[in-house]
Amino acid sequence: MEQQLPQCETLILEKQGPTLIITINRPDVRNAMSLHMVAELSTVFSEVEHDDSIRAVVIRGAGGHFCAGGDIKDMAGARGQKAGEGRDDPFYKLNRAFGQMIQQVNESAKVVIAITEGAVMGGGFGLACVSDLAIAGPTAKFGMPETTLGVIPAQIAPFVVERIGLTQARRLALLGLRIDAAEACALGIVHQVAESEEQLSDMLNQALERVRLCAPNATAETKALLHRVGHEAMAGLLDDAAEKFAAAIRGPEGMEGTMAFMQKREPKWAGNES
Amino acid sequence: MEQQLPQCETLILEKQGPTLIITINRPDVRNAMSLHMVAELSTVFSEVEHDDSIRAVVIRGAGGHFCAGGDIKDMAGARGQKAGEGRDDPFYKLNRAFGQMIQQVNESAKVVIAITEGAVMGGGFGLACVSDLAIAGPTAKFGMPETTLGVIPAQIAPFVVERIGLTQARRLALLGLRIDAAEACALGIVHQVAESEEQLSDMLNQALERVRLCAPNATAETKALLHRVGHEAMAGLLDDAAEKFAAAIRGPEGMEGTMAFMQKREPKWAGNES
Amino acid sequence: MEQQLPQCETLILEKQGPTLIITINRPDVRNAMSLHMVAELSTVFSEVEHDDSIRAVVIRGAGGHFCAGGDIKDMAGARGQKAGEGRDDPFYKLNRAFGQMIQQVNESAKVVIAITEGAVMGGGFGLACVSDLAIAGPTAKFGMPETTLGVIPAQIAPFVVERIGLTQARRLALLGLRIDAAEACALGIVHQVAESEEQLSDMLNQALERVRLCAPNATAETKALLHRVGHEAMAGLLDDAAEKFAAAIRGPEGMEGTMAFMQKREPKWAGNES
Repeated sequence: MEQQLPQCETLILEKQGPTLIITINRPDVRNAMSLHMVAELSTVFSEVEHDDSIRAVVIRGAGGHFCAGGDIKDMAGARGQKAGEGRDDPFYKLNRAFGQMIQQVNESAKVVIAITEGAVMGGGFGLACVSDLAIAGPTAKFGMPETTLGVIPAQIAPFVVERIGLTQARRLALLGLRIDAAEACALGIVHQVAESEEQLSDMLNQALERVRLCAPNATAETKALLHRVGHEAMAGLLDDAAEKFAAAIRGPEGMEGTMAFMQKREPKWAGNES
Repeated sequence: MEQQLPQCETLILEKQGPTLIITINRPDVRNAMSLHMVAELSTVFSEVEHDDSIRAVVIRGAGGHFCAGGDIKDMAGARGQKAGEGRDDPFYKLNRAFGQMIQQVNESAKVVIAITEGAVMGGGFGLACVSDLAIAGPTAKFGMPETTLGVIPAQIAPFVVERIGLTQARRLALLGLRIDAAEACALGIVHQVAESEEQLSDMLNQALERVRLCAPNATAETKALLHRVGHEAMAGLLDDAAEKFAAAIRGPEGMEGTMAFMQKREPKWAGNES
Repeated sequence: MEQQLPQCETLILEKQGPTLIITINRPDVRNAMSLHMVAELSTVFSEVEHDDSIRAVVIRGAGGHFCAGGDIKDMAGARGQKAGEGRDDPFYKLNRAFGQMIQQVNESAKVVIAITEGAVMGGGFGLACVSDLAIAGPTAKFGMPETTLGVIPAQIAPFVVERIGLTQARRLALLGLRIDAAEACALGIVHQVAESEEQLSDMLNQALERVRLCAPNATAETKALLHRVGHEAMAGLLDDAAEKFAAAIRGPEGMEGTMAFMQKREPKWAGNES
């Protein structure tokens, strides 16, 4: 079912075939992540989950930057509010809301692609780390500057460890380093580095072409399976996965996919008719 | 105790000193993994576990390919059978049997070496991912094409996540990509890439030379220990490992190894006399 | 509170501003790790934890080697003692004491930097693997030779798996390989390789400059957070991290850090006045 896309103030939403392009649009503050933006991203991802017409979500930033991190004004606002105890503290709520949005993007059933350019710092770094594919442009700079400000990358560092492992995360986080696209690719923060705008476009188009050829439900099932590895015992996970395999091969995508393969034609889902 | 090697239809078994070479031998279908082959691999690995004369197992494919994935005829056969419910479904059984064999190879007490050439796809990719050492030839291509067929890499993707981590696995699996030997090495699917048949042979021989110098039981104990990391609390694991260390150094290999070291000679196990 | 540094026989301790430099000092045995050295390292790290004047700990070796592994004399001594049962076995105690020290270094609240040169073998390899930043000199050689001696890398291999993942650890440990600095860097054992003594010094100084700019308590909190990832459920971890974020931003470092940022000056902690 195709959903109506929500109206947003901090995001530009554009649909291109089965792809939703989200452009973070606060270029005057290098797309700093405000509470309002967190709420809008969360709403968009909730809508997208139930929209069968969308198979990939591309996240990028306006004005040459992906996202420079948390918004200073929100911080000032939270400091101005009466400090609640524990989870009533406005700083707690602000920080945790960001992490909840990140978790939601991480577990989205869609293929999430991050186009990282310019500043990819703090919260922006965290957001890049939950994509299925991240492509860096030549200007991209990545880092967690939190400890240089006397605070901690609380909702970000855990996703960085999941992304690149403890070994590299401890160096980056504990020294508050800033690294370029080539190093980010070597560490696995991004998968590919483009040397120009044009190459960036080509890499994105090649990825979207692959999304077109992969069955949407099988892709969503596979993504859910990948996220479970390491969080439960392997034998039980494989038992469950075999049930899902049987359901997939007997289901409409499995029927169509094997039929198309034998008939040497593209499967129906490749025509974007879903 | 030296076991009699089983008779196989889909595999060629060859013993060279303490090394068992398994050649997957269905070159007409690029060594596609049939149910029969899964059963034979499982039987061979069961026998090998109790055979002290074998210290390394090399898996490779006949005719220039490692293994192109699941066998289409088995799939057709399963579709022809009456569909059982849940775990009585022939698709469930076929899929799960493959995963059980993979787990068995993963946990083998022997040093398992995969020589990957040509097609290393689907089930073949999964099998390569549970080796202790994987060497790629120049022609090797790796991938999980399942989602392009409307199904899921159910028994494979979990081992791919264990092999290369979630970050790279999500890109490969969700885009159904096909990658070459150099990229497979950069991601850690294989450890080494050979540029020629001759170099491939040299790399294999160097690895087998290392196997010769390492004590068989100590190697098996070490492999079992490595597999436990991340699945239990570190302190208890280290307590248990220290007990195994004490047993090893007081046991015949520890006695012989330290004696040989002091006498500046090779230990007995290096002479292949076990 | 600034602690008096303990007197050591196997270590040279030197304080340079907020940095403690520990030089392993048994050059005649390539800094082999004796029981006495394990005890001294443990004592030093215990003292350091409570010393607010220390923010980074650098570990290196005298005479061109980091640490060649376990001390042969301790092994001989343990063999000479009456063998106790299980955890009364002197070999158990010797081995486990080493692992306990390694765990302590791993979890130190300070930024731990390893300068690896020459032999970085066995126990020395394990020690390098628990640093926050490891820099290799051009002469460094890494390896776990244990299985060639008929024993197992019991307290080391688990930290190697945490450092570089199962895939690379199984090759290194099961073949008893010895690798150079470039390969160690590609695998993530070390983060950087210096081509000369001078470059090594520069890299270390750059890292210490970063330590100077990062708030000490925020750094310690971040390190503790990183260590928890993968060992508990993500949602609960993020809840807790958000509480720590709120506490940090309301605490003295968060106040000073945001103030310094707005006033475009360095925060007080950068002046080494703590």
